[in-house]
Amino acid sequence: MYYGDYLKLDQLLSAQQLESEKKGRYAHDEMLFIVVHQAYELWFKQMLHEIDSIIDVFKQNPVEEKHLFTANSRLDRVVKIQKLILEQIDIMETMTPMDFLEFRDLLVPASGFQSVQFRELEIKLGLSTKRRFQVDQKYFTGRLSEDDQNKVHSYEKTENILDLLEAWLERIPFVKTQDFDFWQEYQKVIDDLITTDEDIIKAHNQGDELKAELKRLESTKQTFASLFDEDIHQQMLEKGDRRMSREALLSALFILLYRDEPILYQPFELLTHLMNIDEQITTWRYKHAMMAHRMLGSKIGTGGSSGHQYLKNTTSHNRVFIDLFNLSTFLIPRSKLPKLPEHLIKKLNYHFNHEDL
Amino acid sequence: MYYGDYLKLDQLLSAQQLESEKKGRYAHDEMLFIVVHQAYELWFKQMLHEIDSIIDVFKQNPVEEKHLFTANSRLDRVVKIQKLILEQIDIMETMTPMDFLEFRDLLVPASGFQSVQFRELEIKLGLSTKRRFQVDQKYFTGRLSEDDQNKVHSYEKTENILDLLEAWLERIPFVKTQDFDFWQEYQKVIDDLITTDEDIIKAHNQGDELKAELKRLESTKQTFASLFDEDIHQQMLEKGDRRMSREALLSALFILLYRDEPILYQPFELLTHLMNIDEQITTWRYKHAMMAHRMLGSKIGTGGSSGHQYLKNTTSHNRVFIDLFNLSTFLIPRSKLPKLPEHLIKKLNYHFNHEDL
Amino acid sequence: MYYGDYLKLDQLLSAQQLESEKKGRYAHDEMLFIVVHQAYELWFKQMLHEIDSIIDVFKQNPVEEKHLFTANSRLDRVVKIQKLILEQIDIMETMTPMDFLEFRDLLVPASGFQSVQFRELEIKLGLSTKRRFQVDQKYFTGRLSEDDQNKVHSYEKTENILDLLEAWLERIPFVKTQDFDFWQEYQKVIDDLITTDEDIIKAHNQGDELKAELKRLESTKQTFASLFDEDIHQQMLEKGDRRMSREALLSALFILLYRDEPILYQPFELLTHLMNIDEQITTWRYKHAMMAHRMLGSKIGTGGSSGHQYLKNTTSHNRVFIDLFNLSTFLIPRSKLPKLPEHLIKKLNYHFNHEDL
Amino acid sequence: MYYGDYLKLDQLLSAQQLESEKKGRYAHDEMLFIVVHQAYELWFKQMLHEIDSIIDVFKQNPVEEKHLFTANSRLDRVVKIQKLILEQIDIMETMTPMDFLEFRDLLVPASGFQSVQFRELEIKLGLSTKRRFQVDQKYFTGRLSEDDQNKVHSYEKTENILDLLEAWLERIPFVKTQDFDFWQEYQKVIDDLITTDEDIIKAHNQGDELKAELKRLESTKQTFASLFDEDIHQQMLEKGDRRMSREALLSALFILLYRDEPILYQPFELLTHLMNIDEQITTWRYKHAMMAHRMLGSKIGTGGSSGHQYLKNTTSHNRVFIDLFNLSTFLIPRSKLPKLPEHLIKKLNYHFNHEDL
Repeated sequence: MYYGDYLKLDQLLSAQQLESEKKGRYAHDEMLFIVVHQAYELWFKQMLHEIDSIIDVFKQNPVEEKHLFTANSRLDRVVKIQKLILEQIDIMETMTPMDFLEFRDLLVPASGFQSVQFRELEIKLGLSTKRRFQVDQKYFTGRLSEDDQNKVHSYEKTENILDLLEAWLERIPFVKTQDFDFWQEYQKVIDDLITTDEDIIKAHNQGDELKAELKRLESTKQTFASLFDEDIHQQMLEKGDRRMSREALLSALFILLYRDEPILYQPFELLTHLMNIDEQITTWRYKHAMMAHRMLGSKIGTGGSSGHQYLKNTTSHNRVFIDLFNLSTFLIPRSKLPKLPEHLIKKLNYHFNHEDL
Repeated sequence: MYYGDYLKLDQLLSAQQLESEKKGRYAHDEMLFIVVHQAYELWFKQMLHEIDSIIDVFKQNPVEEKHLFTANSRLDRVVKIQKLILEQIDIMETMTPMDFLEFRDLLVPASGFQSVQFRELEIKLGLSTKRRFQVDQKYFTGRLSEDDQNKVHSYEKTENILDLLEAWLERIPFVKTQDFDFWQEYQKVIDDLITTDEDIIKAHNQGDELKAELKRLESTKQTFASLFDEDIHQQMLEKGDRRMSREALLSALFILLYRDEPILYQPFELLTHLMNIDEQITTWRYKHAMMAHRMLGSKIGTGGSSGHQYLKNTTSHNRVFIDLFNLSTFLIPRSKLPKLPEHLIKKLNYHFNHEDL
Repeated sequence: MYYGDYLKLDQLLSAQQLESEKKGRYAHDEMLFIVVHQAYELWFKQMLHEIDSIIDVFKQNPVEEKHLFTANSRLDRVVKIQKLILEQIDIMETMTPMDFLEFRDLLVPASGFQSVQFRELEIKLGLSTKRRFQVDQKYFTGRLSEDDQNKVHSYEKTENILDLLEAWLERIPFVKTQDFDFWQEYQKVIDDLITTDEDIIKAHNQGDELKAELKRLESTKQTFASLFDEDIHQQMLEKGDRRMSREALLSALFILLYRDEPILYQPFELLTHLMNIDEQITTWRYKHAMMAHRMLGSKIGTGGSSGHQYLKNTTSHNRVFIDLFNLSTFLIPRSKLPKLPEHLIKKLNYHFNHEDL
Repeated sequence: MYYGDYLKLDQLLSAQQLESEKKGRYAHDEMLFIVVHQAYELWFKQMLHEIDSIIDVFKQNPVEEKHLFTANSRLDRVVKIQKLILEQIDIMETMTPMDFLEFRDLLVPASGFQSVQFRELEIKLGLSTKRRFQVDQKYFTGRLSEDDQNKVHSYEKTENILDLLEAWLERIPFVKTQDFDFWQEYQKVIDDLITTDEDIIKAHNQGDELKAELKRLESTKQTFASLFDEDIHQQMLEKGDRRMSREALLSALFILLYRDEPILYQPFELLTHLMNIDEQITTWRYKHAMMAHRMLGSKIGTGGSSGHQYLKNTTSHNRVFIDLFNLSTFLIPRSKLPKLPEHLIKKLNYHFNHEDL
C-alpha cells in the first residue's frame, strides 16, 4: 500500500483544469475557484456518507441504543464539517471581485445551484422540493441536466431524516402510563401560570394598559393552544409554519423538558445536533449570500440567477428543523415541571443500580 | 509592577454578581451569561479604542500615508476581534434554553439593546439613528436610561467613519488631469460594451425573446446611469439605497479598478477592511438572531422586544458600508480598463526608482 | 434591572488604566495588551466556575448518572472556551514587537506567570506543583506575592480532577463478576495475538532480520506487561511516565473498549473531554511560546524568565491527562474483543426495554 | 459549461475507494480518513500554486512593486488556507482510536510521510533536505517510491522562497548613502544603551550580585555582536542557528525598524506573512503530533515511523523563517531610533505629494 495510490492522487490532482488556460487567458485565481468548489464537493460526499448511515439507523424499529449513540457521534461530525466549510468562504473571499472578473464570463452558465450533492444533502435532511419556499422550487432542479434531474427526483423518493425523526418521536413511550398522563399535568401547570398572570395584570393595570396586557396574555394562550389543539396545528402545517406532527412535537418537548433522565441523554443530544445542523446550514447560506454580494454587487450570478438577493431569500425560508427551535416557546422552569412517578423515573434510568453492589 | 495590580484583577473579578444567588435561587449558568456579556463589553471597549483613533486619522486633511497605514492595521485588528466575538455565540449556546429559564425572569427588563458601547460603535462607524431602518429607530435609544440616552445622543454629534470616508474619498485627486478625464474614458468603455451587446442581441433574437433581452439590457444601462446621473443618485440616496455622495462612490470605484498602482494599495486595503467590518457585523447580527430563536422560540426577549424576528430585521437593514459592496456591479475586466497616462502612473508610484541606483 | 447595572459596567470598564498614559508616554496598543489579558482572566474565572462544580460532582460516591451528564456538558463548555482563548493569541499578535516595545519596560517585572487563576486552574485539574517538571517547580509560585502564594498553596490542599477521576475509575464495577474475569480474557487475546505474530516472524525471517523483528516483538510484550505487572507500573509512576493507579487505568481502558454499551456512553464522553482539555492546554502553551518568540526574539520576558524557551519546555512536560492518550497503545480491534456475558450486557443497558411495551 | 463537468466531479468523486470494503471488512470511518487526506492534498496543490507564483515574482530583479503587492495577497491566502487545514485535524479527531483500528492494518505501510506535495511545499519554502534536523533527513525521502524520490530531488534543484528572500533582502538599498551610514548610527545607539545599563548596574549592585548582573550584560553584548561580527554569524550559520546571510538579516531588521515609511509597507507585510506561514506550519506539526499520540498511544505509525515522538521532534526543529522571529531581539524603541535624513525619508515616500496639488 502506497500513500499516493491509496488516495488516488493522480486522479484527484489532475481534476483541476483551468478554463482560462485553455482559452489562452490564464487567470491565476481560477485555480482557487476550482479547488474551493472541489473541496466543498469532497466534504458534501463525506456528509452524505454520514447522513446515509444515520438514515439507516432511523429506518430500524426500534432504534437500538448503541445505534442512537453512533448516530449522535456522526451528527456531531457533520456539524464540525459544516463549521469547516463555513471557513472556506473566507478563503474564497481572498479572491477580489476584479480577479474573479478575469475568468467569470468563461463559466457562464455553470452555477453552484447545479451541485447535485448539495441538493441530495438538503433532500435527505428533509428539505424536499415541496417543502422549499415557492420561488425557490423552480430553481431547485430547473437548471440541472436531465440525468441530474433524475438523480434528484430519485432522492426525493427515499427516506429522509426529518420524516424518520418524526416517526421515531411519535413512537416514543413514557408520556402516558396507566396512572399518569403527562400532557394533562403539563396543561394544568400552564393553566395555573396563565391564571396567576391574569390576576396580577388585573390587579395592577387599568384602562388601555389593562386591555393591552390582556391582549398579550390572550396571545400567549393561543400559542400554547397550538400545541394541544389539532386544528390549529393543522392550519400551521398547511401554512408551512410547522413541519412535524403534533405527536412528534410533544415527544420532542418531553425530551427537552426531562433531558436529565439517563435514557433521554442520547435523544436530547440528537435534537441538539439537528438544531446545530440547521443553524449551520442557514449561517452558511447567509455568508454565501454576502459573498455573492461582495463579488457581484447587484449583477446576476453566472447561472443567470438573481444572485445575492435570491440567496438571502433561501436563507431565511429553507430551514429544516425549525420546529425544534420553536419548541423553546413551550419550555417551563424545572421547578414547575410535573413530577414524574417513581416507577417511570426508574424506567428512564440504567438497569444497573449502585445499591445492587 | 505586579500582574494582578496592573490588570486590576480585584476590581475585574468581583464584577460577577449572580442575581439568582442573591435571590436564593442559585443558577449555575448565570455566571456564563454574565461572563459572556462582560467579555463582549471588554472587546467593545477595545474596538472603540481603535475606531476612535481611526476617526482621528481621518479628521486630518490631508491624511498622511503613515497614518493611513496605521488605520489599516487597526481596522484589521477590529475585524479579527469581530471574528472572535462571533465565536463567543457558540459558547453562549452551550447554555440550554432550560438552563436559561432558571434565571431569565430575574433579568427582566434588562436587555442587550441597552449596551451603550454597542450603540456607540454603530454610531461611530456611521449608523446614526436616522440611518437605521424605521422600526428600529425607536428601539435604538428608547429603552436606555436618561443618562445613557444623553451619551448616545452626544455620539451622534461627533464625527463618524462613514462621513469621514466620504469626505476623504471626495478629496482624492488623480481622476482628472489636464489631458485626461478618467470618467469620460470609463463611460466610453461602458457604452462600447453595451452597444456590442445590443448588436449581438439583435442579431440572434427575434420577437418576444428579443424584447426580453432588450429589456434586460435597458436595465443594465439604467444601472450604469445611476453612477453618472446625479438625479438618479439623489433618488437612491433619499430611498436609503445609497449612503455616500456620487463623487465619493466614483473615487472608491477608481481605487477598486486601479488597486495595482502602489499609491492605491493602502486605500484599497482600507475599503476591503471596511467591507469586512460590515460583513462581520451583519453575520454577528444573524447568528445572534439565531441564538435568540433557539433560546426563546417565539417568546419575547427579556427586554420585551419581539426577539429573534426583530433581530432578523435589523440584520439585513442596518448595513453601514453597503455602497462598497454594490460597487462590484460597476467593475470591468482589467483588459478593458482605460489605460492611465504615463505621467499619472508615475505619480501613483513610489518616489524611489530602481533606475536611480 | 438595567443592563449596565446588572453587568457592573462602571466597574468593569474603568479597570483599563494605561501605565504608558500615566507616565506621559501614551502607547496606543497598551489597551489591547490589557484587554486581552483581562478577557483571559474573565474566561479563567468561568472555567474555574465549571471545574469547581465538576469537582463537586466527583466528590460524591457514587456519582449519580444525571450529575455525570451535567459534568460532561460543562467539560464540553470548558473545551469550547479553551478554543476561544486560543484564538485570542491571534489578536494579541496584531500588536507588532515594535509596538510592544513602546510600553514593555513599564511592566517589568509583572508577568503572566503571576496569574493566580491560571495556577488554580492547573492545580484543580491535577497539575499540582509536585507533578510539574522540575525546572518549572520554582517558577510555579516563586514570583507571586506572599498573599498569592498562600492562595496557591491552599488550592493544592483541595481536591483535584485527576485524583477524583482516579478514585472514580477505581470504583467502577463490571469488570469482574462471579463467572467472568475480563482482564484474564483480555490477556488471553493479547497472548494469542503475540504468539501468532511470533509464528509469522519466525516463518518469514532469518538471521539479523529475524533478530530485529523478535526484538521489536519483545518490546511490544514489555509494553503490554506494564499494564498487568504492578512493579513495572510503579517504576513508571515514579519516573513520572504515569500519573494514575493501574486499577484506574484498567477501568479507563475498559470504558474505551466497550464504549458501545449504554451505561458507558457518559464515562466515554468524560474521558474524551478530559483528553480534549489536555490537548487544548498544551496547544495553548505551544502557541503562547510561539508568540513570546515573535514578540521578544531571544530576549528574556518582562518577568525575567527565559521567555519562549522556557514556555516550550512547559508545553511538552506539563500534561495532565497524558495517561488517557497512552491508553490507545492497548486498544484491540472490536472483532478480537472478549465477548461480555449476557447478564453483564443487560446490566450495562437501560432499565427500559422495548420488549416491555 | 456545466457545473459538474467544469469541476470534473465524476473523476473527483470516484476517487474514494475504501480498502476495508474491498477486503469485505467495511469500516464506516475509512471514508473520513480518505476525504480528510484528499482535502489536504487539494489544499496543498492550491498552496503550491500560490508559492510557485511567488517564486516567480522573486526571481525578478528588481521585483516590481505591483508584483510585491500581489505576492503579499497570495501569501495572506496561504496563511488562511493553513488555518483552515489546521481545523481539519479536529474533524479527523471525531474518529476514535477504536474506529481507526477497524482498518488501520490495511493501510500499512502507507504513511503521510509519503505526501510528495507536502515535501514539495517544504522544499519550495526553503526547507531543503540538508536544512532539516538530522534524524529527519533519512525519513525525508527514504520511504518514497523511486519516481517520487526523483520528483523530490528535482524540487531541491529549483529556486525556493528562503533563498530568494535572502537575495532580495541583500539587494535592498537605502541603508547606506553618501552622508549616512545607518548601521553605524544603530551601533552607536546600542553602545549607548549598554553603557548606560553598565553604569546603573555598577551604581546599584555589589559583590556576587554585581558579578551576575555584569555577566548578563556581557551576554546581551555578545547577542548584539552576533549581528555585526561576521565570524560569530558564520559560526551560527554552521550550527544551523541562522539560515540567512548577515546582509539579509540587517535589511530585514531595517524593514522592521522603519516599517512606518511608505515604501517599506509591502516589505514589512512580506516579512509578517512569512512569519505567519512559519508559525502555522509549526502549529500544524504540533497538532498533528498530538493527534498521532491520541490515535496510536505509543504505538508506531502505519508507516513504521516512531509516531508522535518523531513528529514532536520535527515540530521544533524544522522551522523555515526562524531568523525573522529572532530579529525581535534587536528591535529598539522608536524614540531611540536613529533619525533618517530628510532626503532618504523623501525617497521612501510616494512620488505624489499633497503639496503638489
